[in-house]
Amino acid sequence: MIISLGYVTVPAEHADQVSQMLSGLAAQTRTEPGCIDYRVSRDLEVPGRFSLVETWAGLEQMQTHLALPHIGPAVEALMNLGGQHLSVTAYEAGEAMSML
Amino acid sequence: MIISLGYVTVPAEHADQVSQMLSGLAAQTRTEPGCIDYRVSRDLEVPGRFSLVETWAGLEQMQTHLALPHIGPAVEALMNLGGQHLSVTAYEAGEAMSML
Repeated sequence: MIISLGYVTVPAEHADQVSQMLSGLAAQTRTEPGCIDYRVSRDLEVPGRFSLVETWAGLEQMQTHLALPHIGPAVEALMNLGGQHLSVTAYEAGEAMSML
Repeated sequence: MIISLGYVTVPAEHADQVSQMLSGLAAQTRTEPGCIDYRVSRDLEVPGRFSLVETWAGLEQMQTHLALPHIGPAVEALMNLGGQHLSVTAYEAGEAMSML
């Protein structure tokens, strides 16, 4: 399984628009092959910072997702809205360990 | 490295209070030995749902954190505020792969 942690920070005046964009992206992505979960959320401490937590069955499916034709324009739209510090980092994950 | 994904959902009327609690917990936890990052955020799609994304140098440090005396009462406080579906799941993570 792959876990991916993504972050982007946008100016406060665009946060609502970005929130809508990311919610739509999440709902769409969860229907894609190999997508186990895709959650978008807004940081409680840093204004305008958003988190994307993705879990995928494998790296190949995540790469297929990133190559879809709507992803490039979505990233571009984020940048046009003043997005900064965009990063998406994936990790191969071992067995799930329930801690709480 | 350990990645931990945590979730809890609280009733809307307690969301602001939980937001403050989790922000304080995050700031404190980031100072603990072995804590690489600890981010708390609010889901964009599910009202009252919070995410906790933790990265730790190793499982032992995360376990030490969970055994600290303020953690049990924090979980209890969440439950007393109507917290539901609380889960914290940790994974051993491989090399970071930058995807975007």
